[in-house]
This record gives sequence, C-alpha cells and structure tokens, in this order.
Amino acid sequence: MKFTKMQGTGNDFIVIDDRNNSFLKKESELAIKLCDRHYGIGGDGILIVRNSEIAQIQMIIINIDGSYASMCGNGIRCFAKYVYDEKIVTGDCIKIETGDGVKEAFIHAEDNIAKEVTINMGTPSFDTKYIPAKFNEEIINKQIKVNEREYNITTMLMGVPHTVIFGELEDYNVEEGRAIEKYNKFPKGTNVNFCEVINNSKVRVKTWERGAGPTLACGTGSCASVIASNKLGFTGKNVEVQVPGGKLFIEIKENGVFMTGPAEVSFKGEYEI
Amino acid sequence: MKFTKMQGTGNDFIVIDDRNNSFLKKESELAIKLCDRHYGIGGDGILIVRNSEIAQIQMIIINIDGSYASMCGNGIRCFAKYVYDEKIVTGDCIKIETGDGVKEAFIHAEDNIAKEVTINMGTPSFDTKYIPAKFNEEIINKQIKVNEREYNITTMLMGVPHTVIFGELEDYNVEEGRAIEKYNKFPKGTNVNFCEVINNSKVRVKTWERGAGPTLACGTGSCASVIASNKLGFTGKNVEVQVPGGKLFIEIKENGVFMTGPAEVSFKGEYEI
Repeated sequence: MKFTKMQGTGNDFIVIDDRNNSFLKKESELAIKLCDRHYGIGGDGILIVRNSEIAQIQMIIINIDGSYASMCGNGIRCFAKYVYDEKIVTGDCIKIETGDGVKEAFIHAEDNIAKEVTINMGTPSFDTKYIPAKFNEEIINKQIKVNEREYNITTMLMGVPHTVIFGELEDYNVEEGRAIEKYNKFPKGTNVNFCEVINNSKVRVKTWERGAGPTLACGTGSCASVIASNKLGFTGKNVEVQVPGGKLFIEIKENGVFMTGPAEVSFKGEYEI
Repeated sequence: MKFTKMQGTGNDFIVIDDRNNSFLKKESELAIKLCDRHYGIGGDGILIVRNSEIAQIQMIIINIDGSYASMCGNGIRCFAKYVYDEKIVTGDCIKIETGDGVKEAFIHAEDNIAKEVTINMGTPSFDTKYIPAKFNEEIINKQIKVNEREYNITTMLMGVPHTVIFGELEDYNVEEGRAIEKYNKFPKGTNVNFCEVINNSKVRVKTWERGAGPTLACGTGSCASVIASNKLGFTGKNVEVQVPGGKLFIEIKENGVFMTGPAEVSFKGEYEI
C-alpha cells in the first residue's frame, strides 16, 4: 500500500488514496496500526481519499485511537494539497466532503505544487446554550476563579467550545488548561487558548485541547483567539497567529473565518498490509 | 534518499545505506531531522550502513538527539537483518563493526529473509570498580533503602551498569527506577530492571533506562536480568524474557551472553533531503 506522510504546523497525517474502497471495512483498525509511532508509520491520524457524490472528493479522518473525526483544520490543508498535487481534482478551489459538511479549500500554488491552503472554518457562536455554558449572558472578558487563580475568559463555540485568556504567555503554564477545561460551568468542557497580543496584526497562542492536552497547533483555537482579540479591540480582522508548530493566518470575513496555513509532504512510502 | 524503517521489540530505527559516504559530515543533524516524529520520519535513532576495513560491514548508530551510541542490542538486530535481506553481505554469521568493537550477528532466516537475529552481547562484570559502585563486595541480593522503600538489588556491568530487583511486577512502578538510578552509591547511575520469575526458563522484565526512563525493551537489561536470576538460582541459563515490546531469548554461554530476538521492516520510503 502506497502512502504519503504529511504535516501541517506539526499535526501529522498518513494520507492514503482509497478511491477504490479497498480499506472501507477495516479503515478503523488500519488507522490504529498505521498511526503507531514505534510499530507502524506514525501519525496523529490518517486521511483517506474517497470519491464523493456531493463534492469533488471526500475526506475521511480517523484518529490514532481508531475513532472518526468530522473535521480537522490542519488535516484538511494536507488533504487539499494532496488531491491537488496528485491531480486527483482540478482547479484551485476544491470542494471537499467532510463529516462536518462540504468545505471549500483554496490552494495557493507555485509551479503546480500547493504551498499553502485557505479553509473557511465557519462562524463562531457566543450563545451560551450552544457552547454550552451555564452563564446568563455572553462570556466576554468575564472573571472566573479556578484553582485559586483568577482568569478573564472569553468563550465561544468555534466548531468546538473555546475559551480564550489574554496575557503574556510566560505568565501561564498550558497545563493550567486542565482545570479550566473542567470548570463546572462548562458541562461539555472547553478548549483553552492562552493568547498574547504582539500588535494589531500578530498574536501568539498556546492551546490546551479538551481531552488531549497541549498540541503543536489548534486551527479552531487560532480562529477563536483572533475572534476574541478582535472583539475586545486588541487586533484587526487579519491576524498572524504564532503557534508552537508554526504560523497560521486568520481572516474574519462576513461569510466565515478563513484560516490559511502550510501543508507539507514529509516523505512517501510503501507499507505491506 | 531511500530508507527502510525497522523495529526490534518496539525500539525503532531508520536504516540508511550510505556506503558511498554521502552523509558523512552531516549525519548527526540528519538524525535529528529524520527522527522527529511529527516533522520527519520518526524513530528512536538512525542506523547508517558504511563500509568497514576490519569487518564485513560497519554500523553507525545516532540517537534522536544527534549523539552517537557505541552499540545497541535492538538496533544491531535490525541492522543485521537489513544487510542480510538486501544482500549487502553474504553468509548467515555477519561480522559488524560497531563503536564497541566487532560484533557477530547470527541470522535465522526463512526463504532468505531474516526472521530473528542472535547477538553475542559480551560478558558481565560484578567488580564494583567497573560498575562503578561504592560497595565493599559484589552486589548480590543486597538490601538498600531508597525513598523509604527497601529493595534487594543485584548489580553488574553488562555493557552499562544494571541493577536487577526481583519480585512481582504488580508490586513495583517502573518510575521507582528514577530514584534508584541516582542512589548515592552509584557514581555513574544505574539502569534498573524489575524482574518477575515465571518459571525456570521464563521471566518478565520492565526496565528503567538511565537518563531515558521506561522503554519497550532493553537488550542489555534483559541479559542482566537473566544473569542475576541464574546466579540466584531462580532460572537456568536459557531463558525467555517478556519485555513490554515483545520477547527476547537469552542464553548464558562460556564465551558470552547471547541474545536472540526479532527484527522487522515496518515500511520503506523515500525522503527528499
């Protein structure tokens, strides 16, 4: 079986072209086997290319534990580069079927090779019943106390629940997110983004992902951080986000929040099933 | 650059044929780049195939941090399988130059493909000045107290310093090795092996590696465990060792301690330098 190992801001995936449905019934166990970093190929997940009846192509994302993810910002950039570079689809605006509906990926190419990809990540909601959060009004710069420390939080649903806390990154340990995730007013928990504003168009973000801990880059967390920093007047609507795994560019538009970021091939290989 | 990803009892390596010395001057930085599990290929280390003037072939081992290792039991099994399967050398007893002298690898093959490899791992020393250890006599089943817990230890030099502690594995947390490693009578520290005797020819071992923590399989630690269990009369000289990453077979002979274990290809690939 041929595969391509890719990464986007350090989030790494094994991409497999399975348009002939060879692995349809065993894809979950295949993901567990392939993602093992000592015995398999190693990766945060696998991205399977399948034909779609409602879009140009379909992306299946399976996590390292064999569970399905409906959507992943870093993953879809890699997927879009793959189907573009391999000429599986044509055009530089690709419609991709995901578990979260059809997404549009805009390819920024040089010499027919995708360098960066822009994805419309959708729109945020501050409605506390959707987040969900047990607050009587929108959570904009509200003070809470967790483990004897006070935090000013701004919380929204941006695909998943996201809480943003502003300040200098040196003042926070990302591990503090562990307790904030489980704060009793968030029945489904929350991702936690510590965000430092550098200037009107640049921020630094470290994310504690709900149930997963610190990660190299969280796409929806970067979007949430820029939405919050813009709402509080710290930045404009076009912001570079420095995350531990690299840089993402977020633009807030009428029809959604657009994330632009890198996608790279690490290597190509062949694995015997 | 073509490479083969291999593993032996879960210890995983990127094997590169560099008999034409292409990477001679940049092999250390290459190892750091390739071993990165998110941005590179991923591995515990790289094994470089080079020509030798004193043996059939030479193995260079570079760790994930770019440092050189003189020898590695799991690594040399993978290396031996590689040079045998790829027909880089002939015969089923291969002389390999390592940083620890010339080692002999005995290939157990089926249809010209190596399945298991036996390595002479050398002989142990109980001499406390070589271990080194600040004890007045050999350390055979001696009681020490670390962090308020008493342990009966047997300590030797088996390539590196190894302490063996017998008991049921459920009674120990491998993390206890952290404090034992730094016990003040071991000036260079010690690896710590928790060993449970199943019967006369079978033991279970979990190893805390000095400076590295718990690992899936430690070749020299498995040898040390069997030497100690034989010395204390718990087992014979031919013992199966169950480690977290698989099984190793240790045989104590006149001319050395022989370790037999698996070596497998995970996948083959091509990486653009």
